[in-house]
Amino acid sequence: DLPLTLIAGPCQLESRQHAFDMAGRLKEIASALGIGLVYKTSFDKANRTSLSGKRGAGLDAALPIFADLRRELGLPILTDIHEREQCAPVAEVVDILQIPAFLSRQTDLLVAAAETGRVVNVKKGQFLAPWDMKNVVDKITASGNPNVLLTERGASFGYNTLVTDMRALPIMAALGAPVVFDATHSVQQPGGHGGSTGGQREFVPVLARAAVAVGVAAVFIETHEDPDRAPSDGPNMVPIAELPALLERLVAFDRIAKSA
Amino acid sequence: DLPLTLIAGPCQLESRQHAFDMAGRLKEIASALGIGLVYKTSFDKANRTSLSGKRGAGLDAALPIFADLRRELGLPILTDIHEREQCAPVAEVVDILQIPAFLSRQTDLLVAAAETGRVVNVKKGQFLAPWDMKNVVDKITASGNPNVLLTERGASFGYNTLVTDMRALPIMAALGAPVVFDATHSVQQPGGHGGSTGGQREFVPVLARAAVAVGVAAVFIETHEDPDRAPSDGPNMVPIAELPALLERLVAFDRIAKSA
Amino acid sequence: DLPLTLIAGPCQLESRQHAFDMAGRLKEIASALGIGLVYKTSFDKANRTSLSGKRGAGLDAALPIFADLRRELGLPILTDIHEREQCAPVAEVVDILQIPAFLSRQTDLLVAAAETGRVVNVKKGQFLAPWDMKNVVDKITASGNPNVLLTERGASFGYNTLVTDMRALPIMAALGAPVVFDATHSVQQPGGHGGSTGGQREFVPVLARAAVAVGVAAVFIETHEDPDRAPSDGPNMVPIAELPALLERLVAFDRIAKSA
Amino acid sequence: DLPLTLIAGPCQLESRQHAFDMAGRLKEIASALGIGLVYKTSFDKANRTSLSGKRGAGLDAALPIFADLRRELGLPILTDIHEREQCAPVAEVVDILQIPAFLSRQTDLLVAAAETGRVVNVKKGQFLAPWDMKNVVDKITASGNPNVLLTERGASFGYNTLVTDMRALPIMAALGAPVVFDATHSVQQPGGHGGSTGGQREFVPVLARAAVAVGVAAVFIETHEDPDRAPSDGPNMVPIAELPALLERLVAFDRIAKSA
Repeated sequence: DLPLTLIAGPCQLESRQHAFDMAGRLKEIASALGIGLVYKTSFDKANRTSLSGKRGAGLDAALPIFADLRRELGLPILTDIHEREQCAPVAEVVDILQIPAFLSRQTDLLVAAAETGRVVNVKKGQFLAPWDMKNVVDKITASGNPNVLLTERGASFGYNTLVTDMRALPIMAALGAPVVFDATHSVQQPGGHGGSTGGQREFVPVLARAAVAVGVAAVFIETHEDPDRAPSDGPNMVPIAELPALLERLVAFDRIAKSA
Repeated sequence: DLPLTLIAGPCQLESRQHAFDMAGRLKEIASALGIGLVYKTSFDKANRTSLSGKRGAGLDAALPIFADLRRELGLPILTDIHEREQCAPVAEVVDILQIPAFLSRQTDLLVAAAETGRVVNVKKGQFLAPWDMKNVVDKITASGNPNVLLTERGASFGYNTLVTDMRALPIMAALGAPVVFDATHSVQQPGGHGGSTGGQREFVPVLARAAVAVGVAAVFIETHEDPDRAPSDGPNMVPIAELPALLERLVAFDRIAKSA
Repeated sequence: DLPLTLIAGPCQLESRQHAFDMAGRLKEIASALGIGLVYKTSFDKANRTSLSGKRGAGLDAALPIFADLRRELGLPILTDIHEREQCAPVAEVVDILQIPAFLSRQTDLLVAAAETGRVVNVKKGQFLAPWDMKNVVDKITASGNPNVLLTERGASFGYNTLVTDMRALPIMAALGAPVVFDATHSVQQPGGHGGSTGGQREFVPVLARAAVAVGVAAVFIETHEDPDRAPSDGPNMVPIAELPALLERLVAFDRIAKSA
Repeated sequence: DLPLTLIAGPCQLESRQHAFDMAGRLKEIASALGIGLVYKTSFDKANRTSLSGKRGAGLDAALPIFADLRRELGLPILTDIHEREQCAPVAEVVDILQIPAFLSRQTDLLVAAAETGRVVNVKKGQFLAPWDMKNVVDKITASGNPNVLLTERGASFGYNTLVTDMRALPIMAALGAPVVFDATHSVQQPGGHGGSTGGQREFVPVLARAAVAVGVAAVFIETHEDPDRAPSDGPNMVPIAELPALLERLVAFDRIAKSA
């Protein structure tokens, strides 16, 4: 049971400068707490609620920035991919390829990600049971890649609502993959704002505390210096100024959770 | 209110001969009842539960067969696409491009399908509310294609279970798109058999009767001469021998449903 | 397969005059359509959302009115009971004792109702699966009363929402009890209005059509001459003026549903 | 924020001797950890899945035992009541009257419990949203009793399954009532064993850890020296031998959860 790792960053890659600012600040926060950090950011939001939602910097603009972040700050990078053609080029500059929840059953994407040899982090579909992830893990390991992470990010619960079943964490861990808890997307209200997805930022600490006490390998938290002005997922991102206090408590829970 | 149309066929394109046999038999059945028929078949099952699930004939083998079916039998063809590159070549030989439910929020796929000018049939995600489909319709119509169909195929209800909310039918119709009821996938038990998805064929007539009485433009029913030996979706396909009696009753319900 | 029966009436017994007016009007409607009628009304609403919700006339005031309605109009009467002490006195003047959904697992109430010898209609709890009703039926029949009806009225679906699973109708029928579809409470939005329960009257015909096409013994519809001024369940009661047209269509569906 | 209290005991009152043995052992465990203890036990199981399920000692046999437990061991006692007539006599010998989840909207029972002046602990119905409990609290406080506890015990999630939404804990706390987490009934599988309710004892620690990390006033855990031989709720009771280690960790989480 290794200590808790933090996977964090803004939802979208907004600009080179913004990425370096956020990554630098997160590196300081993680160092102060003595925890590992993976920097997360997206080059494309491929399933925005509406066509007019901002989609991000795009692959070509993002890859050199990812490479520089990684080299200059020494941080592992995680980003999500949406089409199999993206896997190989993205794998050259990032450490973890993330499969979005809606795409968690798309065989070709899973296999293409697996074949890069990078760590593959699959978000559990909102429509899947935790034990259903066994087949997902098998698709990746059968493709020759044993490095799979599984992420809990909520299950469909009626309309426009997700619920996090904390039992999913040990059930997925028993499949042999380290488990990540995504505290940001678990508090989404899908479609809840009509033309965009809503969120309940105030429940990020609630669910993160619960998940860390149950026991997870990593917690995933999207953050921003000013979430209400972020181009996506603003309603469920945590202001970076609030992150140190939240993490301090999570680290304390993690120590107890993993004590013999 | 046009009379009910039937969208039917086997889950997968198994072979040229099998496709012609099934399409011919379905054409006879539809003619005898005086209803319209769209022939449905898939060239690839891109999200099988496990890697070992049979995926189908593949795009290259399928397109000439689709073209011949259409020309020789005079039937409109519907098939599902999974990647944006597939849209243009498939659109040359089919009449309706279908977006799978898991992919119903993937903007690029929706736009690529829309830009072919073909009718686009979007299956409502198991994780979406019926009113969420407004944004999906908008993505297609804003791309210049007004020909959208929406298909109900069940909503996530706890683990490994779908439920059909019949209110979804009029709610989606109010978005301005003709509504299809997929009686086959609505009775799936996702992941219910461990390494494959289960189904409850006995409830296909139950849900189809309910949906037609509420009022739909079309009913979608996968069928096979021997479902238990079909390469996919066997547990929820209806034996073709049982189809005429079921359809006869659906047509009678449809007449009452659409009477003034 | 007997023809469809109508169970109808206002949610609450408001006054002797109102009850006679409603029952008389319903009797005319049912006669015109040639269908059976059971008059439904409640003497007490024991689980209103808030203390200030109107509870009804009370047992003592209601029983003589029930007796007179039954004798003068020749109508069977259905009412709901909430405590075991109510079973015996109520059974003297009504034909069907109804167990509310929240109380569908309360053994003493079920047994007391069974022991009256009257027909017992149990509403399926919003928290129960249709197959769970087997144990409920057994509690009544093991108490020496074989006359059980089971009513579908929706299942919990996330927060403040119910969904009707039409598969529940044949599943419960297979338990050996005639099945009633309650189209009124299936469209409730429990707690949806803060201090009171909401409803979506516009979906009563939708769900009633679906259920009758699947096949039920009876349809339960609460009605009122002016639902928006009714003391309870107004948002989901159908104006009585709209009932004849709705029922006419239901009767047509029922004939097809039950044809050989 | 007072330190965590333990509400514990066997599901049923089995015998005077068994009650004294269990209560004595629990008192030792709680003392060793320096936490408060409320002894929980039921005199009647009024909603067993089937008629043949054991119901318990009964009111008359139980009350003197409750009185003796309380006097001789100095422990506050909690028991559940099912009918309004039970409230007054039970209130004479117990400290907390508990309203079962299925009955959480029964106005007369809530008011009768409130009028005893004892603390009233209401279990949130599996069919209610956490914010719906505001009306429940209001029914009790409007009856002149401000001493209300609210208990989370899971929400309906598809069929035969409950899910615990950890957001419910702070939402209910914001209603002004101390919140209890019932780790025992939250892992029930209602109706999951056909003629009896199943459970998943292995998830009791998982959910208890999560809830305590979020922050609760008390945790409710049913326990038994040999759960598999207990007359009810065996599948979800924790063996008392495992309780000290579990509680030790919960107390550590509680300290961090409630630190400034």
